[in-house]
Amino acid sequence: MIAAYMDSTNLKPEATRDDIINLCSEAARLQMAAVCINPYRLNTAVEVLHDTSVNKCTVIGFPLGADRLATKYSESRSSLLLGADELDMVINVGALKDGDFHIISQEIKALSQLKEEFPFLLKIIVETALLSEEELITVTKIISDSRADFIKTSTGFSVRGASLNDISLISQYKSNELKIKASGGIRTLESALAFIEAGVDRIGSSNAGTIVEEYRSRGGLLRR
Amino acid sequence: MIAAYMDSTNLKPEATRDDIINLCSEAARLQMAAVCINPYRLNTAVEVLHDTSVNKCTVIGFPLGADRLATKYSESRSSLLLGADELDMVINVGALKDGDFHIISQEIKALSQLKEEFPFLLKIIVETALLSEEELITVTKIISDSRADFIKTSTGFSVRGASLNDISLISQYKSNELKIKASGGIRTLESALAFIEAGVDRIGSSNAGTIVEEYRSRGGLLRR
Repeated sequence: MIAAYMDSTNLKPEATRDDIINLCSEAARLQMAAVCINPYRLNTAVEVLHDTSVNKCTVIGFPLGADRLATKYSESRSSLLLGADELDMVINVGALKDGDFHIISQEIKALSQLKEEFPFLLKIIVETALLSEEELITVTKIISDSRADFIKTSTGFSVRGASLNDISLISQYKSNELKIKASGGIRTLESALAFIEAGVDRIGSSNAGTIVEEYRSRGGLLRR
Repeated sequence: MIAAYMDSTNLKPEATRDDIINLCSEAARLQMAAVCINPYRLNTAVEVLHDTSVNKCTVIGFPLGADRLATKYSESRSSLLLGADELDMVINVGALKDGDFHIISQEIKALSQLKEEFPFLLKIIVETALLSEEELITVTKIISDSRADFIKTSTGFSVRGASLNDISLISQYKSNELKIKASGGIRTLESALAFIEAGVDRIGSSNAGTIVEEYRSRGGLLRR
């Protein structure tokens, strides 16, 4: 079932409460893996998704990643207290460009420590659009050496989203355990299936409902 | 002098420490009003601008504004502790769309209370690109009734930046005391001069250096 791969996403700043309620209701009806929403909308998602199997995912340091660690940490902890099941944190891209790799490791380590208090999935957004191949390899290795669960390609707010080339490069250098979430610009069933074929475990899309409905109407083509 | 209107801005997530050092050195040399940078870069700006008259401005809840108030507040307070002179906070656009105007007032009130501890200028970014005329009027009135110092048009990360029409509408409904910062897409001297003629008190631009140099090379045209 393709729905199990889907993080149904609405991160638009102008999204209304009704937009988020609709996103959550649809995700529950179609049995998506998760909804991905801004921190302010977490309360609404927790209310609507109570008693469903859909995870509540929110974003941290989003979409620029250029916050201080203390801000990312406190936003993470309060999101978990409010009921988040998954956190998608943007790395500090500027620190990576500076060669300050310890900043990236520290951020992931600090957020991972929250796993001792809360059960949750930690995804690390690397914004592939802004990275050289070498930088993507470096950060893939850093994340592989951490307790993060996923490497996620993109915020959807940069110059491009996920590419199959990103997935291929990440797959070559990541640990066996680390999963991949492809996100940004994945708006069709064909595109979603291509990323699943390439080996990703989750797909973030603001068009997830349409993708799942189309998959169902075709009778389910997914072999993997 | 046009430099006194300028918030020289680099909010790119991929900006390096050297980019920020250059931005700050140029701002000091050209006597800009402020530099506007991401929270992670505040320490660098404080170091470089020590002993100059250039203000250090950072952004809060940027660029989506969809964080919870607690996050915006703690990021504000820690930025002030680190030496920020100005905070540019993005409003919760979604709450405005929901008609939850009290959320907007509460955010501004909470940040304004920090004025009892720290001297700083508070600018409220409304992201005019996402607002109807009615919503822009409503939020202009809310900000006029608060202790914020500026209303700021745009983040530079939305579908458009400032327009002269925004400035005209804001001017019609704001209090006398509230100042205006125009930002987003202002990249030429002509454009900057048009906004100054229209009555704005600050201009945010990632091309401020070029604008000021061109102004100087023309011998200074500013009458206001």
